[in-house]
Amino acid sequence: MGSTSPDSHVDVLIVGAGPAGMMANMHLSELGISHRIIDHRGTRTLNGRADGFHVPTVEIWDSFGIYDRIEKYSERFGQWGLWTFGEDAAAGIYRQHLGSIPGHENLRLPKIGTMHQGMIEAGLGDGVRARGGPVVERGTKPVELTIDESLVNDPTNYPIIMKVHHVLKSELPDAWTGAHSVQEDGTLKPEKGFVEAFGTDPHEIENHVDGTEGTTETIHAKYVIGVDGAHSWVRRQLPDLKMEGENSDQVFGVVDIQPITNFPDIRRTCSLLSHAGFLLLIPRENGLVRLYVQFPEGYKTSDVKDRNNEKATVSDILKAANEILYPYTIGYKYCDWWTIYRVGQRVCNKASHLDRIFLAGDATHAHSPKGGQGMNVSQQDTYNLTWKLAGVLRNQLSPSVLKTYDQERLPIARNLIELDNDMAKVLLARANRDEAEVQRVYKRLSKFSGPISTYKSNLVIGEDGKGARQDAATGLPIGLRFPDTATVYSQADGDPTSTLSLLKSNGLWRVLVFAGHLADKAQLAKVDAMGERLKALQQRYPPASARREDFLEILLFHSSPISAVEFSDFHHTFFPVHETLGRNYFTIYGDSGGVKEADKTTGSHGVYGIGEKKGALIVVRPDQVTAWVGELDDVDQMEEWFASFMIAKDEAKRRDSGREGGTKI
Amino acid sequence: MGSTSPDSHVDVLIVGAGPAGMMANMHLSELGISHRIIDHRGTRTLNGRADGFHVPTVEIWDSFGIYDRIEKYSERFGQWGLWTFGEDAAAGIYRQHLGSIPGHENLRLPKIGTMHQGMIEAGLGDGVRARGGPVVERGTKPVELTIDESLVNDPTNYPIIMKVHHVLKSELPDAWTGAHSVQEDGTLKPEKGFVEAFGTDPHEIENHVDGTEGTTETIHAKYVIGVDGAHSWVRRQLPDLKMEGENSDQVFGVVDIQPITNFPDIRRTCSLLSHAGFLLLIPRENGLVRLYVQFPEGYKTSDVKDRNNEKATVSDILKAANEILYPYTIGYKYCDWWTIYRVGQRVCNKASHLDRIFLAGDATHAHSPKGGQGMNVSQQDTYNLTWKLAGVLRNQLSPSVLKTYDQERLPIARNLIELDNDMAKVLLARANRDEAEVQRVYKRLSKFSGPISTYKSNLVIGEDGKGARQDAATGLPIGLRFPDTATVYSQADGDPTSTLSLLKSNGLWRVLVFAGHLADKAQLAKVDAMGERLKALQQRYPPASARREDFLEILLFHSSPISAVEFSDFHHTFFPVHETLGRNYFTIYGDSGGVKEADKTTGSHGVYGIGEKKGALIVVRPDQVTAWVGELDDVDQMEEWFASFMIAKDEAKRRDSGREGGTKI
Repeated sequence: MGSTSPDSHVDVLIVGAGPAGMMANMHLSELGISHRIIDHRGTRTLNGRADGFHVPTVEIWDSFGIYDRIEKYSERFGQWGLWTFGEDAAAGIYRQHLGSIPGHENLRLPKIGTMHQGMIEAGLGDGVRARGGPVVERGTKPVELTIDESLVNDPTNYPIIMKVHHVLKSELPDAWTGAHSVQEDGTLKPEKGFVEAFGTDPHEIENHVDGTEGTTETIHAKYVIGVDGAHSWVRRQLPDLKMEGENSDQVFGVVDIQPITNFPDIRRTCSLLSHAGFLLLIPRENGLVRLYVQFPEGYKTSDVKDRNNEKATVSDILKAANEILYPYTIGYKYCDWWTIYRVGQRVCNKASHLDRIFLAGDATHAHSPKGGQGMNVSQQDTYNLTWKLAGVLRNQLSPSVLKTYDQERLPIARNLIELDNDMAKVLLARANRDEAEVQRVYKRLSKFSGPISTYKSNLVIGEDGKGARQDAATGLPIGLRFPDTATVYSQADGDPTSTLSLLKSNGLWRVLVFAGHLADKAQLAKVDAMGERLKALQQRYPPASARREDFLEILLFHSSPISAVEFSDFHHTFFPVHETLGRNYFTIYGDSGGVKEADKTTGSHGVYGIGEKKGALIVVRPDQVTAWVGELDDVDQMEEWFASFMIAKDEAKRRDSGREGGTKI
Repeated sequence: MGSTSPDSHVDVLIVGAGPAGMMANMHLSELGISHRIIDHRGTRTLNGRADGFHVPTVEIWDSFGIYDRIEKYSERFGQWGLWTFGEDAAAGIYRQHLGSIPGHENLRLPKIGTMHQGMIEAGLGDGVRARGGPVVERGTKPVELTIDESLVNDPTNYPIIMKVHHVLKSELPDAWTGAHSVQEDGTLKPEKGFVEAFGTDPHEIENHVDGTEGTTETIHAKYVIGVDGAHSWVRRQLPDLKMEGENSDQVFGVVDIQPITNFPDIRRTCSLLSHAGFLLLIPRENGLVRLYVQFPEGYKTSDVKDRNNEKATVSDILKAANEILYPYTIGYKYCDWWTIYRVGQRVCNKASHLDRIFLAGDATHAHSPKGGQGMNVSQQDTYNLTWKLAGVLRNQLSPSVLKTYDQERLPIARNLIELDNDMAKVLLARANRDEAEVQRVYKRLSKFSGPISTYKSNLVIGEDGKGARQDAATGLPIGLRFPDTATVYSQADGDPTSTLSLLKSNGLWRVLVFAGHLADKAQLAKVDAMGERLKALQQRYPPASARREDFLEILLFHSSPISAVEFSDFHHTFFPVHETLGRNYFTIYGDSGGVKEADKTTGSHGVYGIGEKKGALIVVRPDQVTAWVGELDDVDQMEEWFASFMIAKDEAKRRDSGREGGTKI
C-alpha cells in the first residue's frame, strides 16, 4: 500500500461523487461545513448513465442557482407516445395515444428533461465551485472503516476512522465511454463520446489520481455519507445494514444512439409494448435517443462485463429493439454509450448506523429504470440529510434530528419500489393493456416526481392537532414539499414570481406570514403588532451558516394588490434594514401586482387555502418542506414547536465552549 | 517605440473590444473568418457603463446561444413609474403613473433588462471562446493607418497597413472601477467593485499587455472595423468621415449605488421630472440602482477628469438627485461606479471608407442615455456588417453588398438621434407635461427597440412589386427584423417554439416555406413538387462557412395540426437525411401541436398574414431580417433575386483560383 500520510480530521467525509455525493458536497459547501469527498474513479462520469430530471430535482437545482444548466442543456420532455400491439402479432405495434406526459400538462416551468450524468455531476460541481467547496479527490478508495463507539455519544468527537488509499494511476478503473461508430465494413471504431459539460475541465474528464499515488491516509471524521453506489463498500462494512427485496431477473439493455429510423415518434418520449417486449424511448441532447430495452426473461447477463464482446452486446440491444419496434426499423452509425444490467427491486433495511454513518442513493435502493426516478431520489436523499448534519454540527439542532433521516427517506425508497412494481404490472401486461391504467401509473409517477411524497410527523415535521393546524392552509400539507403553484408579486417592483422560488437552499428556515387583506387597516395593525415577537424568535437560535446572521428568514404575503400598501406601512421585521446595503426589498409580496384584486386561482391565499382574516403562519424547512402550519394567532404554538428540536444561542454557546476544552483538534 | 515584429496579415482587423467590437469578434468567429481584435485598454470594462438590453439585442444573443447569461444575470425591467411635479414646487414630485413599460406589455420572453458592461463584454467573450475565436489583444493601440488605394479594387488584396503598438504596462490606462464605500467619518474608501462576470477570468480583469511590451507591429488587413468609441482614433485618420450635429450642453451624471432611501419605487424603472431636473432610475443587479441625472445647463464638466476630486463629483450627482427626488431622500454607503459626461447628438456623415474600413457603435453615433439604446444599436451595427464581410471574403456575395452597410445603418443612427430629441422634448417639458405624450415617446422607444427599424430596398433587401410581393405575407414586412410573434410546433416532438428562435446566427440564409394547409393532399403534392428546385437552389452558392455544407437552410411551416401529416409525406429537401446522423428532425413545423386546427392569433400563417392556398416563400438574411417575400409560385422570382447579388459556385471557384495566383501570402 506504500507510505502513509499523517492523520487528518474532517467533520463530514463523503464517499462517492455521483449525483447524490455531489449534491451533499454542494449543500455542505453552502452551509460552510468542513468536509471532503472521495471517489475511487479517476474522472467524473463521462457520458450516458442516469439522465432523467423530475420536478423536485429541478426545483432543488433552481434553489441553488444552477437551474440554468438544465434550462439550456437538457432535452425537455415534450409529447408522449403510447404504443402497443393488437390481436395480430404480425402487424406489429401501433400508436395508442399521443399527448402530454400524464400529470405534466400544466407545469409552470419546463421542469422535466434529460441530460447525461456527466452533465449532472458537472452542474453540481459548478455549484460547489461557486461556493468555494472542495474538489473531488479522485482515485481515492476507502480501504478500512472502524468506529470508536465510546466516542459516538459526544457530538464534538470524531468516532469514525477511515483509511483511504490514493491508488496508483495504473490501478484506476478504465474511464470508458462506450462511444463508437459503425464503419462501412461493419466494424466498430471507438469514439471520444459527448463528454463535454458546460465547457470541458480536463480535471474532470482525464483519468488521474488526486493525492500522492500509492499512499494511504487515515481520516478521522465526525460523520460519513456513503453514496458509493449499488455495490456500496461503506454498506458492506456495516453488518446491520442489508438490502432487502427481490434480486429479480429483469435485464435491461440501454443505448444512446443517433438513430437512423422510420419510426415516426423518434423525437417523442415513448412507452412501447409489443409481443417482443418493452421499450422506453427518450429523445436526448446532441440528436441522440436513449432506448431502454427490457430483455426477455433468462437473458444471459454474463456478456455485460465483456468489453471485448462489445459488438455482440450492442447489437443484442438493437436486435431486441427492432423486434419490439416492428414494423418500424432502427439502426445507427454513432453510439454514444451503452450498458446491459440486471435490476433488483430492493431497499436497505436502514440507512444509518449509530447516527454517524448515513447511506443514500443507489447504496440504499435499487429498482428498474422505468420511472427514471433513481438519480432524483438519490439527490433528494442527501439534500434531506445535509442540512440536518450541518444543524447538529453547528449546535443549532438537537442531535436527535438525525433520526428523522431514516424516518423520512426509507418510506420514500419503499414507495419507489412499489411504484416500480405497479408500472411493471401495467406497462408489461401481455394482453389487453388498458390505456386508462397506463395513464394512471404515469400520473402516479408524476405525482411521485412532484409534491406527493409526504413525510409523516416527526421531530422536524409538525403534527396536525398538536400545536399545528392543517386547516389554516389546506393547500400546504404538512410534511410535503412546498408546492410551486402560486404566483405572487414583489411589493418592490411588481415582478411576478413563484412563491417556491423565494425559498433558496442556503440553510435558512423560513416563516411565511400569510397576512391576508392588508388594505384593511385593522388587519395591517394586527400583523405589524407581531413584528417584535417574530424578531425575537429570529434572534433566538444560532445562524444557518457563517455567511448568515440569522437562522430564520421572514417573508410576508398579503392578498391585497401591492398598490394598496406601501413599505412604510410595515414593521421593520418584515422590511429589514441593513446598515450598508440599505433595505432588503424582497421580503414582502402581494397576490395582485396591479390595482385589481387578486385572482383566487393564482394568488397565494387562494391557491394555498388560507383565510384572509385568520391568515397563516407557515414554517418551511431548509429543504423546501412545509414543516408546520398555523394561524396568525398561533405564534405561541409555533415558538414551542421550534423549541422542541432547536438549541437556543445560550445553550449552543455553552456546548461550543465545552467543545473548546474537549476533543477538538 | 522599441523594436518591431515581422509584418503579419489578417482578413479583418477589429479595433476596439467594447460590445460592438466583441459582437464583430463573435460573429466572425462563427463564420470562420481570419481576424484579430485589439484594444488599447489592459482589461475588459470592469463594471458600470452601458447596461441596457433591448428586445433585438436579446434576440440576437439568443441566436448565438448566449441568452442564458441575460436570463440568469440581468436585472429585468418590470414595472415602470412615471413621476412628475405639480403647480406647487415646494410639494415635490408625485407618482403620475405606475404600470408596465409602455410597449413592452406582451413580450414572449423576458427580453429587456440591465447588466453592467463588463458582463456584456464577458458574455460576448464566452460566445467567442465557444467558437474558437481570438482573445482580445490588450494594451495594443493603433498608431498609423495607411491605405494602398491601388489595391482596393481587388478583393483578394490587403490594402490596409495598420501599425499597432504593444504599449509598456506602465503606459496602460488605469483600470479604474470607481467603486468606493463611505466611511463613518465621511471619507471615501476605494473598493474592488462588482467586477465579476460568470466567473472571473484574471485575463479579463487584471491590467496587462498581450504581445511583447514596447514593440510595434505592422498588420496588413483586407478590412478594418473601427469600433473604438466616441473619440475613435480610426475615424480621426479618415478626413472624409465627420461627426455632424449638435455638440450639446447636456451633462449627465451617472452613478451605480446600493441606495439608502425612502423613495417607494426604488426597485422600479422610473422616469422622474421635477422642478430641479430630470432623473432616470434603473434597478440593477447586486442590489444596485443606477441614477442618470441630467445636470442643469452650464454645469462645469471640467471636474469629470479630476479623479482626485472624486468626492466632489459623486456628491454633486447625489445632491442633484436629492433635489429632483424631493420630498424623498437618497444616499448610499456603497457606490459601484460613477461618471459625469457631456453628450452631443451627432451622427457620422458616413460609416465606411472605400468599402474597406467600416466604423460602428459610438464611433458613428452619439446621443443621450435616455433611451438606453446606444449599446444595442452598436452591437446591431457590427452584427449587420460582419456577415456581409464574410460573404464577400468567401466569394459568396458580390462586393457591392458592402455598400448596404452605410445604406442600412446610417438611417438607424439618424432615427436614434431624432428619437432622443423627441424624448428630450417630452420628458423635459418644464410645465404641463402630458402623460399621453410620455406614453407615446416610450412606445416609440419600444418600437425602436423592437422590430420597427425597417431597411429600405437595396441590393440585399427585395422590393415590393419588383419580383417580391409584400401581400403574400402582410405580417412580415420586407426589410424588418423577423418578428417573434408566432408560435409553431415541431413536427418531430410537438414542442412549441417561436419561429424566430429557429433562425440561429450561423451565416445561413433561410427560405421559409409557408406551405398552407397540407392536410389537403393537392396542396401537399404541390409543395413536394417544389423540392427538387429548392434543392438545386440550395446547392448553387458557396456555403455559409467552413462548418456548413450549404448557404441556405430550408424550413417548412404548415397550417395543419402536426398530427395531420407524417414525415414520410415530405420530399427529402424538407426532411433532409444525413448519412451518419440520420434525419434532421427540426425542419418542419405546424401551426397546431395537437389534433385541433391552429389558433389564428398564434399560428404562423395567421400571425404573418399568409394565405393557406397561396402560401409564401420568405427569404431571411443571416441577420434575421426579412429580405424577400413571395408566394409559393414565385420560385423563379426568388431565384432571380438571389442571383442578383450572389456568386454561383463555379464563378466563386474561378475567383478563388485567381486568388491563389494573386496576392495571397
